[in-house]
Amino acid sequence: MALWYEELERAQERIRRARQQVAVGKLSGAVGTYSNVPPEVEDHVCARMGLTPVRVASQVIQRDRHAEYMVSLALAASSIEKFAVEIRHLQRTEVGEVSEPFSRGQKGSSAMPHKKNPILSENLTGLARLIRGYCLSALENIPLWHERDISHSSVERVIFPDATIALDFMLHRFTGLMEGLVVNAGRMRTNMDLSGGTTFSQTLLLALVDAGLTREEAYTIVQRNALGAQDSGRAFCDLVREDPEVTARLDERAIDSVFDPAGLLGRVGPVIDRALGGGE
Amino acid sequence: MALWYEELERAQERIRRARQQVAVGKLSGAVGTYSNVPPEVEDHVCARMGLTPVRVASQVIQRDRHAEYMVSLALAASSIEKFAVEIRHLQRTEVGEVSEPFSRGQKGSSAMPHKKNPILSENLTGLARLIRGYCLSALENIPLWHERDISHSSVERVIFPDATIALDFMLHRFTGLMEGLVVNAGRMRTNMDLSGGTTFSQTLLLALVDAGLTREEAYTIVQRNALGAQDSGRAFCDLVREDPEVTARLDERAIDSVFDPAGLLGRVGPVIDRALGGGE
Amino acid sequence: MALWYEELERAQERIRRARQQVAVGKLSGAVGTYSNVPPEVEDHVCARMGLTPVRVASQVIQRDRHAEYMVSLALAASSIEKFAVEIRHLQRTEVGEVSEPFSRGQKGSSAMPHKKNPILSENLTGLARLIRGYCLSALENIPLWHERDISHSSVERVIFPDATIALDFMLHRFTGLMEGLVVNAGRMRTNMDLSGGTTFSQTLLLALVDAGLTREEAYTIVQRNALGAQDSGRAFCDLVREDPEVTARLDERAIDSVFDPAGLLGRVGPVIDRALGGGE
Amino acid sequence: MALWYEELERAQERIRRARQQVAVGKLSGAVGTYSNVPPEVEDHVCARMGLTPVRVASQVIQRDRHAEYMVSLALAASSIEKFAVEIRHLQRTEVGEVSEPFSRGQKGSSAMPHKKNPILSENLTGLARLIRGYCLSALENIPLWHERDISHSSVERVIFPDATIALDFMLHRFTGLMEGLVVNAGRMRTNMDLSGGTTFSQTLLLALVDAGLTREEAYTIVQRNALGAQDSGRAFCDLVREDPEVTARLDERAIDSVFDPAGLLGRVGPVIDRALGGGE
Repeated sequence: MALWYEELERAQERIRRARQQVAVGKLSGAVGTYSNVPPEVEDHVCARMGLTPVRVASQVIQRDRHAEYMVSLALAASSIEKFAVEIRHLQRTEVGEVSEPFSRGQKGSSAMPHKKNPILSENLTGLARLIRGYCLSALENIPLWHERDISHSSVERVIFPDATIALDFMLHRFTGLMEGLVVNAGRMRTNMDLSGGTTFSQTLLLALVDAGLTREEAYTIVQRNALGAQDSGRAFCDLVREDPEVTARLDERAIDSVFDPAGLLGRVGPVIDRALGGGE
Repeated sequence: MALWYEELERAQERIRRARQQVAVGKLSGAVGTYSNVPPEVEDHVCARMGLTPVRVASQVIQRDRHAEYMVSLALAASSIEKFAVEIRHLQRTEVGEVSEPFSRGQKGSSAMPHKKNPILSENLTGLARLIRGYCLSALENIPLWHERDISHSSVERVIFPDATIALDFMLHRFTGLMEGLVVNAGRMRTNMDLSGGTTFSQTLLLALVDAGLTREEAYTIVQRNALGAQDSGRAFCDLVREDPEVTARLDERAIDSVFDPAGLLGRVGPVIDRALGGGE
Repeated sequence: MALWYEELERAQERIRRARQQVAVGKLSGAVGTYSNVPPEVEDHVCARMGLTPVRVASQVIQRDRHAEYMVSLALAASSIEKFAVEIRHLQRTEVGEVSEPFSRGQKGSSAMPHKKNPILSENLTGLARLIRGYCLSALENIPLWHERDISHSSVERVIFPDATIALDFMLHRFTGLMEGLVVNAGRMRTNMDLSGGTTFSQTLLLALVDAGLTREEAYTIVQRNALGAQDSGRAFCDLVREDPEVTARLDERAIDSVFDPAGLLGRVGPVIDRALGGGE
Repeated sequence: MALWYEELERAQERIRRARQQVAVGKLSGAVGTYSNVPPEVEDHVCARMGLTPVRVASQVIQRDRHAEYMVSLALAASSIEKFAVEIRHLQRTEVGEVSEPFSRGQKGSSAMPHKKNPILSENLTGLARLIRGYCLSALENIPLWHERDISHSSVERVIFPDATIALDFMLHRFTGLMEGLVVNAGRMRTNMDLSGGTTFSQTLLLALVDAGLTREEAYTIVQRNALGAQDSGRAFCDLVREDPEVTARLDERAIDSVFDPAGLLGRVGPVIDRALGGGE
């Protein structure tokens, strides 16, 4: 979650910056030389509309600004898609660690009543594809003829409302999804246990290295036990405790410590503080 | 025009083919095995709806079919954009060989009353960008999870109506534009004459080669006169007639023949017949 | 697999067709009128090169043909991505139904020796993104100026070799992956059993409807037991056998039949025959 | 030129910012908790490599950063394309106001020796399409599975070198093109004169409004003369001087002033100073 928080901060900052790039105006005439209207009029009108006058213009505002804006939306949408993909993974029957909000009265899949499909997340995934498409049209709008044809007009009338509405909808839907997200902590622990301890293979690897083995030697031992566990159906941690090459170097207490989930948390507290603290 | 006609035939053929690809149906259950409903029901329903049953399905129809359809629209739109680009070029003040329909009562550019902007063609140019964007979203829809998630649904609800309506509008607008296109044949001839005959530089090149020069020798003579014309402001054809290296090889009648526009037409008649004849 | 087979047939057919569209030639001069070279030369040269002369040309072959070719590659790559996504899902630790070929000597993840990452499938996923990008550049190549500028040249020098090589690599990699795919049938059965029979919820639903309930009544019964199973951790099939609303309508034998996996196979044999038979 | 200068400043600023976004590192372990390596190691290594440690990470750096970088290249390339499009327009035979550097010994078009094609600008146009394609692939890289699959790897190995090299090449080519650009000031004046004064139609419009007409009345007078000039082939300025509705309101001196090109320059000096001054 800390990582998502920080990623959305970047998305927000990009949109804020891009918004400034398009919150500009011009009233400097057909070739931008104020030949008929003095700059004071432009200043006055822009100030009234909350816009900054551009420093130089042709008949129109240059479209790299608007493309940057659309791109900032596509980047935000793609990050939300990533979060949605994560939820879709965690909700699948075989994983079951989270699920989208689902009220008892709500129907599930029409064909399969037992299924709770991650419909909100799948919807978010699709909408991101849509906004990436709009962003492409905006990039193609940049090379106007004589920096002022009006071919961008038909494009922008569609993509500006459609992309901003779609992203707004995505943000609301994602917020609601997160607020109602059902987290199944028990299943998380069960899934970890199902791995028979292979989750800790790297910790074991490093403990063996600390105990004097080369990385290659340690890797061979760990991988042999990991694959052995998969082939035999026995737990990795059990095989490790029986492996003389391991027990020659790590005593029981050291092995217990390897398989202690608390170790994986590392310095997670400070990391979260840093992520939520903002700034870079 | 013959080239456009033939290019649109290709576009039409692609759309027709892609339409067949999506005019399909399935009623074979959640994993496509007809476990609850026999194929006869599928046959019956599809026949009533004018659809062909797919040979094999998961819970959904595979999305490569729908992407092919969207791509066929994007290819058609891009060809129309090419035609629009041509009209925009030919309508510019310095060329002036064609112009879009423009009724006397119609206003021109708001700032510049004398200008007849190619607004229809610029509009068509922009709409093609839009449809290319939609086509991209459709391509991203193909890799569904387990070949049946519903992430494509939100995308298709937008891009199918928006892209088909946009292309339909483009086709109507383009048809109207072509029906009312103003062709200025006099200006075409004037523009050719303004070139002082450089349009015929290749014909001269080949005539000199026929007269015994190597291609390199002929190229040097032609380019020298062409650049000389540009530098001096004199007509290329006049310089050529005065060039002793030319007149040593081509008599006056031969030079007249070089600068005769009719020669450029070549076998244009049979080409047009072939283009309009269809088939390949 | 039958579905993949049939989808690749479509991809192959599209590429074959698009290949014909670009296997064309022209030698009709700068404006396509054969003003200097008769059509017989074009016929002769094209025949020698295995090309078909186009019916009409400007100075160049029109680029909608080349875009169609690139699009056919992008469609094929996107289908392969779909297959790769399926393998990535089935290989994840919690599912474990298939895994990519992995020789005992091969190293796994550098940090986590026990992990067999689906690196081939992830690689295929990325390459499809690449080819979709190339296809976009090809679409933008269509609206050449005066149907003959050379802006497409720099693009095609890159995208044609890069996209064809990438797709060729994908096809080889995917073929090798499928040839060596490790299928864990036992795990498939285990995963089905883990569902406690919810896989058969639709079959139960239909059996209850056949026994006289409305679809809504049946749906309510099935969903209640499905959610009850998820909440209680007990097997869906056990709850169903204890539910008086079910047992009032279905005897033990009928319930056994509902939970028989063979029923799901339906008419899978004929479907596969039809899919592999080709034609549509 | 001032407008291009300022637009490239924006492009440069975006690339600079995006470069910071990707000049980051992480050494915080497979789930970013520093469970095996303390943050000091990350600090030390990143400092040595000129990188900033990210505030929070999964196994990898999040790909929205890299997509932002690719997008910044695509925005820059699209602006260069716009400049190239302008040069292509100004170089066409009928306009002839600028031309690309062309040494006397250099060959022109192979078929048409007199033609100086804008080959550098057409090349730049194509390369921008290429980079927009790469940018799309980068956007699709964002939604990694569990925020750390490696599907982005195959993509980035291609698009990072290819896009950065292509943009570097574009910048060098564009710089050389601008340094050697041939400007034909005489032709610019000739083209303006060819318009017969319609370039000043807006100035006339405003002068008539200042003289007491409504905008609609003035517009009608100006458009009538503008279209009359196009139909008759006579100069707009001559028709205007003969129009009693004009002469009733503007004396000869006022009309001279309307058709004085110096008026169009307006406040161009301060605008250029402002554009080159930087900052916003």
